[in-house]
Amino acid sequence: MSQAHIESGEDYIQSLRGRGLRVFYKGERIDEPVDHPVIQPSVAAVAMTYDLALKDPELATAHSSISGTRVNRFLHVTESADDVVMQNQMQRRLGQLTGTCFQRCVGMDAFNALYSLTYDIDQQRSEPRYHERLRAFLRERQLANHVVGGAMTDPKGDRSKGPREQEDPDLFVRVVERRDGGVVIRGAKAHQTGCLNSHWLVVMPTMRLREGDEDYAISCAVPVDAKGLTYIVGRQSCDSRALEGVDQGNAGFAGQEAMIVFEDVFVPDHHVFMDGETEWAAELVERFTTYHRRSYVCKTGLGDVLIGAAAQIAEDNGVPNASHIKDKLVEMAHLNETIYGTGIASSHRSTQRPAGNWECDAMLANVCKHNVTRFPYEMGRLAQDLAGGLVATCPSEKDLDHPEIGPLVDKFLKAGPGVPTKRRLRVLRLIENMTMGRNAVGYLTESLHGAGSPQAQRIQIRRMMDLEGKKKLARTLAGVGDED
Amino acid sequence: MSQAHIESGEDYIQSLRGRGLRVFYKGERIDEPVDHPVIQPSVAAVAMTYDLALKDPELATAHSSISGTRVNRFLHVTESADDVVMQNQMQRRLGQLTGTCFQRCVGMDAFNALYSLTYDIDQQRSEPRYHERLRAFLRERQLANHVVGGAMTDPKGDRSKGPREQEDPDLFVRVVERRDGGVVIRGAKAHQTGCLNSHWLVVMPTMRLREGDEDYAISCAVPVDAKGLTYIVGRQSCDSRALEGVDQGNAGFAGQEAMIVFEDVFVPDHHVFMDGETEWAAELVERFTTYHRRSYVCKTGLGDVLIGAAAQIAEDNGVPNASHIKDKLVEMAHLNETIYGTGIASSHRSTQRPAGNWECDAMLANVCKHNVTRFPYEMGRLAQDLAGGLVATCPSEKDLDHPEIGPLVDKFLKAGPGVPTKRRLRVLRLIENMTMGRNAVGYLTESLHGAGSPQAQRIQIRRMMDLEGKKKLARTLAGVGDED
Amino acid sequence: MSQAHIESGEDYIQSLRGRGLRVFYKGERIDEPVDHPVIQPSVAAVAMTYDLALKDPELATAHSSISGTRVNRFLHVTESADDVVMQNQMQRRLGQLTGTCFQRCVGMDAFNALYSLTYDIDQQRSEPRYHERLRAFLRERQLANHVVGGAMTDPKGDRSKGPREQEDPDLFVRVVERRDGGVVIRGAKAHQTGCLNSHWLVVMPTMRLREGDEDYAISCAVPVDAKGLTYIVGRQSCDSRALEGVDQGNAGFAGQEAMIVFEDVFVPDHHVFMDGETEWAAELVERFTTYHRRSYVCKTGLGDVLIGAAAQIAEDNGVPNASHIKDKLVEMAHLNETIYGTGIASSHRSTQRPAGNWECDAMLANVCKHNVTRFPYEMGRLAQDLAGGLVATCPSEKDLDHPEIGPLVDKFLKAGPGVPTKRRLRVLRLIENMTMGRNAVGYLTESLHGAGSPQAQRIQIRRMMDLEGKKKLARTLAGVGDED
Amino acid sequence: MSQAHIESGEDYIQSLRGRGLRVFYKGERIDEPVDHPVIQPSVAAVAMTYDLALKDPELATAHSSISGTRVNRFLHVTESADDVVMQNQMQRRLGQLTGTCFQRCVGMDAFNALYSLTYDIDQQRSEPRYHERLRAFLRERQLANHVVGGAMTDPKGDRSKGPREQEDPDLFVRVVERRDGGVVIRGAKAHQTGCLNSHWLVVMPTMRLREGDEDYAISCAVPVDAKGLTYIVGRQSCDSRALEGVDQGNAGFAGQEAMIVFEDVFVPDHHVFMDGETEWAAELVERFTTYHRRSYVCKTGLGDVLIGAAAQIAEDNGVPNASHIKDKLVEMAHLNETIYGTGIASSHRSTQRPAGNWECDAMLANVCKHNVTRFPYEMGRLAQDLAGGLVATCPSEKDLDHPEIGPLVDKFLKAGPGVPTKRRLRVLRLIENMTMGRNAVGYLTESLHGAGSPQAQRIQIRRMMDLEGKKKLARTLAGVGDED
Repeated sequence: MSQAHIESGEDYIQSLRGRGLRVFYKGERIDEPVDHPVIQPSVAAVAMTYDLALKDPELATAHSSISGTRVNRFLHVTESADDVVMQNQMQRRLGQLTGTCFQRCVGMDAFNALYSLTYDIDQQRSEPRYHERLRAFLRERQLANHVVGGAMTDPKGDRSKGPREQEDPDLFVRVVERRDGGVVIRGAKAHQTGCLNSHWLVVMPTMRLREGDEDYAISCAVPVDAKGLTYIVGRQSCDSRALEGVDQGNAGFAGQEAMIVFEDVFVPDHHVFMDGETEWAAELVERFTTYHRRSYVCKTGLGDVLIGAAAQIAEDNGVPNASHIKDKLVEMAHLNETIYGTGIASSHRSTQRPAGNWECDAMLANVCKHNVTRFPYEMGRLAQDLAGGLVATCPSEKDLDHPEIGPLVDKFLKAGPGVPTKRRLRVLRLIENMTMGRNAVGYLTESLHGAGSPQAQRIQIRRMMDLEGKKKLARTLAGVGDED
Repeated sequence: MSQAHIESGEDYIQSLRGRGLRVFYKGERIDEPVDHPVIQPSVAAVAMTYDLALKDPELATAHSSISGTRVNRFLHVTESADDVVMQNQMQRRLGQLTGTCFQRCVGMDAFNALYSLTYDIDQQRSEPRYHERLRAFLRERQLANHVVGGAMTDPKGDRSKGPREQEDPDLFVRVVERRDGGVVIRGAKAHQTGCLNSHWLVVMPTMRLREGDEDYAISCAVPVDAKGLTYIVGRQSCDSRALEGVDQGNAGFAGQEAMIVFEDVFVPDHHVFMDGETEWAAELVERFTTYHRRSYVCKTGLGDVLIGAAAQIAEDNGVPNASHIKDKLVEMAHLNETIYGTGIASSHRSTQRPAGNWECDAMLANVCKHNVTRFPYEMGRLAQDLAGGLVATCPSEKDLDHPEIGPLVDKFLKAGPGVPTKRRLRVLRLIENMTMGRNAVGYLTESLHGAGSPQAQRIQIRRMMDLEGKKKLARTLAGVGDED
Repeated sequence: MSQAHIESGEDYIQSLRGRGLRVFYKGERIDEPVDHPVIQPSVAAVAMTYDLALKDPELATAHSSISGTRVNRFLHVTESADDVVMQNQMQRRLGQLTGTCFQRCVGMDAFNALYSLTYDIDQQRSEPRYHERLRAFLRERQLANHVVGGAMTDPKGDRSKGPREQEDPDLFVRVVERRDGGVVIRGAKAHQTGCLNSHWLVVMPTMRLREGDEDYAISCAVPVDAKGLTYIVGRQSCDSRALEGVDQGNAGFAGQEAMIVFEDVFVPDHHVFMDGETEWAAELVERFTTYHRRSYVCKTGLGDVLIGAAAQIAEDNGVPNASHIKDKLVEMAHLNETIYGTGIASSHRSTQRPAGNWECDAMLANVCKHNVTRFPYEMGRLAQDLAGGLVATCPSEKDLDHPEIGPLVDKFLKAGPGVPTKRRLRVLRLIENMTMGRNAVGYLTESLHGAGSPQAQRIQIRRMMDLEGKKKLARTLAGVGDED
Repeated sequence: MSQAHIESGEDYIQSLRGRGLRVFYKGERIDEPVDHPVIQPSVAAVAMTYDLALKDPELATAHSSISGTRVNRFLHVTESADDVVMQNQMQRRLGQLTGTCFQRCVGMDAFNALYSLTYDIDQQRSEPRYHERLRAFLRERQLANHVVGGAMTDPKGDRSKGPREQEDPDLFVRVVERRDGGVVIRGAKAHQTGCLNSHWLVVMPTMRLREGDEDYAISCAVPVDAKGLTYIVGRQSCDSRALEGVDQGNAGFAGQEAMIVFEDVFVPDHHVFMDGETEWAAELVERFTTYHRRSYVCKTGLGDVLIGAAAQIAEDNGVPNASHIKDKLVEMAHLNETIYGTGIASSHRSTQRPAGNWECDAMLANVCKHNVTRFPYEMGRLAQDLAGGLVATCPSEKDLDHPEIGPLVDKFLKAGPGVPTKRRLRVLRLIENMTMGRNAVGYLTESLHGAGSPQAQRIQIRRMMDLEGKKKLARTLAGVGDED
């Protein structure tokens, strides 16, 4: 992989070409993913993160003390609470611009979590090791302006069992060999966001580990085109429409998730950031999810798009002033801003780790994400309500363009005067796209499961809710002091 | 169209062939819809209504006093409250068997509404006309065992305007010529459920009409293969998977909605059931929606399937006994049975019209449908929660079957022992199918808009809620009698 | 207790006098409960069940084959599905007329459950015993037109333990002595609805029992004035207002719950309906709750009152036509009718027990009650929303009536022209009464916990939801037959 | 009123005595409110704001550039975003310590809003006037350490009409005379929080005014003991329990709301902050509500108490580890923190007004308050669920203390070993207090209506949601550029 500095989205797309990745989709090997119609929109979403950095550097870049230069904010280790807040601002904006998952938050949140973790591990070691490696790695990525993805979720097999208890020991990524100069890892990571569109992956364990699990306590960086990697791209609802080139709703942008198989991949020591420290695995997961659960503020950008689409179709239908329609738009905005409020509050309330980086508030991060597991679904329902039944029954745009029946479609789907039927159709397709089409994957299902399923947040909220303190407040006011 | 009695689902499918319908889908004319991969599953869903009648005649047939024989329940005019209840029972069962919209309720509810309406109109006329025509029409359909669809929803154009105020007078179906022996109609009906799979369509006006709207006050029966009809099939989420023949989730069954264009279609007098009686249009809509809003009990059958799929995947994931999982299944069941309860209550509380047929309770019918506009969305969210993120990111079954990477997919997507990976994948696809794929159209969007969008039910509930009576109750208990 | 037939509400009130009950309230013995200002409104609510029977015998009485006469419906063992339905109709009506809990459903549901249970137990015995006793007991009550209360809920102590594992064996009612001619029972029943207002109590076990629990498996009838009974009346929110005689909201009617202590009460054999049959205890609870959970349809009568009050205050405030106000009233009605629909559906779908009585559908009964644990709270919130802040801050009616400041209160709390300030105040008080005052106990908290707390319904729904059947439906549609 | 500096809560209470206020409650004149059992707990809640300032000055005081000294934070004009954030921190803490409304936010938010408003008005005047007056007034209050209340809400009469259109022109506070040295005002302010417990009131108009409404555009400061003022204290649910001295749940603290009648009260010019500037009335309301809607973060402090009480009772009942119980506590915490997150986000995102003070984000403030109109009700329902039915039916503590039946109550209400029955009773009473007793007024109804009823927030959200911008985002992604 070239280390030449990537500047624009176009440069970035070029940088992905010719890597000879081993990629499968729908049972076929794909030669050049970046040019595949189904994958291309996901590349375009990442490219937008480069273009935004050029267009709005205040928002999408930051000065890094690691490389001493201004870097893409997605490559930045937070140096202030404001840095954490600005991540959210950038995420919402990119959500507005793409209407989908732009795939770079996992990596950013991963190395921010590792940044403090490697520091803390090193504090306990006689000779520090990991933190400096990570800084060196990040410095290179910043200078090259690379995309770094994060890889955490193992397939897990039988969920009632831990890594070593599985019939197949490979169901969690593990070190199968430790040799001079590096380690060899094997396993898989499931539903990896934007992995094909990255230059590097940061591998992390997926859950709390116990003594004896040392081989599973591995965190390291791996280039996307490393030997031994296979990518199997997940299907998304309506993904085939990209092949048809019509009725896509959002033709420009989409998310991407793939399964990555690691078949004995060698990782040199200087890219290993944790190896065997089982007692730190849970902590890493927790720091990562703290950052990442609040990163779901990105969905408020998608929410802005959906609200806009719903308002547009209501207006085009001729009834923008019906009180129930205005009220549903307000409800959508209220829910959307509630997500935003809980997320941005988490970022504002960041505190500094001894390593120097700033980390957002864990309780509010979990609360933010937990709202994300609920509200987009209700917003999707409301958007479909405002759209009318046509959102699920309207003909293809090919019918509208058809010489014979096109005029019939145009005649009968014409809403008010001045409303182009094509616009009506396309806005409906956009709502379909976000509520039951390709980007519903990102707007709904990923909102549910990304950064941990709902129950994972509830467990964290329970741990942090200080029930003993609250019970004491209650006893005091009830007049039953602890001495009673 | 042959009048030979149709017996089985297979006979039915045969009866649809060779009708030379003018059908378009994605910009192309389709020669034989019944054999088109995208349309075929929707035909199969209707065929199930024939097969169920053979397999469980108690449930799916009834003795009709119109033809004096036992007929498919979908062709039956209700003769008791129990008949109305049995419709709901049959609907839930068919939902369970197909996991989709089986498309025959609209027609059944349409002629049941027309049955009493034509009778009541005739009572006001010096010479009765419509009711006997309708009975004759129904007798023929019962003897031939035909599928009768209903056609109500006009495109409506600018929703802030009535039929005559539109720029284009054809945006509501209307009589353009009254000639000896019949009428000629023009216009379109939008998102018509199962129209291609029907033998006949019963046309009805879509809304309250006023004096001067006489040409729009038309109800009549039209054969599906009548001259002048064009059908434009609506796209559904993931419809292309039927062309791929894989990853469909529910390969066997699907819904169908199309726009029907009427280009000057001639209807002989004996198939006209209303012509010009504007004052009865609102009443017809109300009687129809009363039946039809309670017909959405069908969705509880789909809900049963979705609950089952969610339970199956939770079990296969290895965590069926986690308390939050059991609790989410209970919540799904509770919501599903709440829909069922409100719907079946409406049916049980049917009363007899002077025409002799039985009609369900209007308030409860609206309440049932209003719950249907909410709960399936929440149930879909819960099902996705139980499914895990894989529901939106898992590879194609083609990858599992691939000689090279199939073993990798199998290895890493293997859940517990004894869980075939293919089963896991297919159950996930079924959940995808119902929550953001092809049958999400029927399970979610149609639940929202079919038989009237949410606001339509709210308007009806408001009209029927007897606020004056309730205020009086309150005043009495508050001690402010009406004399105060 | 006199056996003279009670006719009117007035007779009934008279029948309660002079019983010498041992009753405590707020640390004081009450001599004549029926005349106590706090208790009197709860007596009036029961009296209404007599007056309604006189005024609307079709609704509130039924012909009983047990006594061969027409009896108050609250003393009737259901002889048809229609009988079960009529209970719900009567319950809603009484809720409308009283705005509170009228306290007779527990008893009615108790002996209906016991009716089939005693029959079924007797089938297993060599010599039948219980069923005939129960019929004889009921015949007497019907002829005397008595109020029969039910007594099920034991205090339970440490909820993680069963009856025998408690430190104090008396925390569940039990037989402490079996002597010739009868048994002696000891223990307590907590929050017993309307017990003071009853003539007889039917005691039942509260939960599933196991071998060894024989002494706790006791069901019997006890006269309210039996020797050894003590009643401790529970406090209700705002109960003191009854003593002030002002600002009550609903001055006429209230609920009542008390703890009953049984200090070695003798019960003659002919009033014992179960003694030692531990294996039937769970079944009795289940049959009782099946009836009783659907009896919560009564709350829709209270809901009607609350909707009426909210509509009245909105109108008096001068804004009845604001769209958001109309919409909130519709939402209240929708929720109220959803409760009604699920409850009445349960009744309509009753089936006959071998004993001859009809029992409602268990799944729908639980679903009804579960909705009752949610919707009244939301309705209360909406009512307070419509009421405006004054519902929680308005001066006493004594201020309005005060010679000096009355005119000021009247001047400044005057709403529109034609709205008497007294009416405004009283309607506000009624809303306060039902949402955070005395009848909030019945409308909200009892809705939550009566007939079993929410989790109890969830457990029942889980048991009845046929997950295996649903999973099979899903597997079939997913294409993974059981053989796969 | 003495200008001596008040230090402690005790000093404060002393400062309220002997003012000779004209106060009515339940139709009787109250001589010394501060010693009245019903009013005293509301005084105690305010006193806590003094004691907290002594105990935790970092949290509850701030350095003011107006007086150049450290002042109680409730008397502070915000000088940084952090100041705004600290208000929220203090509010939550006081909510935890009192479990009720501590009544000082209205005043604080009022003069913060007036601070920038008077500045902005003055900018438009040839000779500035108001801003310096306000600063001088605040300086005095800060030095004396007074309680300043806010008085905004007029009775409004017929809500469909504006101030001048009412039959009675006094239904909004207005200037009835402008004389040398001051103005004379007449009217009333309804449900005024903590007015009796204040030293000064800041009067403000309640809504948007129009030309011709000049007399209603009055803002000024009035001492609580001014001539012409009458206070009519509102009744609260269960307020009489304070007279009984038992079963109060929270005996120490309560809120207070009263109607203030202004019968021609003279206000000297130097206490007038707005007089006739109708065009600024809406702006004042908006700035005030922006601060005040986010002040409802205080309710999360009450929420902490309620969660603690629910956890305590669940533990005492013996079932703290039942999964549904843990889950309900988590849900309560999630809702509570969602309110906190949206509120504190608003404060963090404060911006500086030209006058120098900092004002929180308006959209998030409205979103916070809108969540407050919903979540406490659901939290109250969940707390009652966890409490069990006893929360609404348990005997008086007087029964527990009764020599004769006390042992019976103790025996039968004993939960697990080591759980004092008194504790159980008192914690239940606390839950009753907050969900349907005295502090339900503050925790529920005030949450609904304080700082504007739900619809007021929806109107603001609608105004700020930038629908045009969102529509443009949607059109761009749908591929229908504005040029199309």
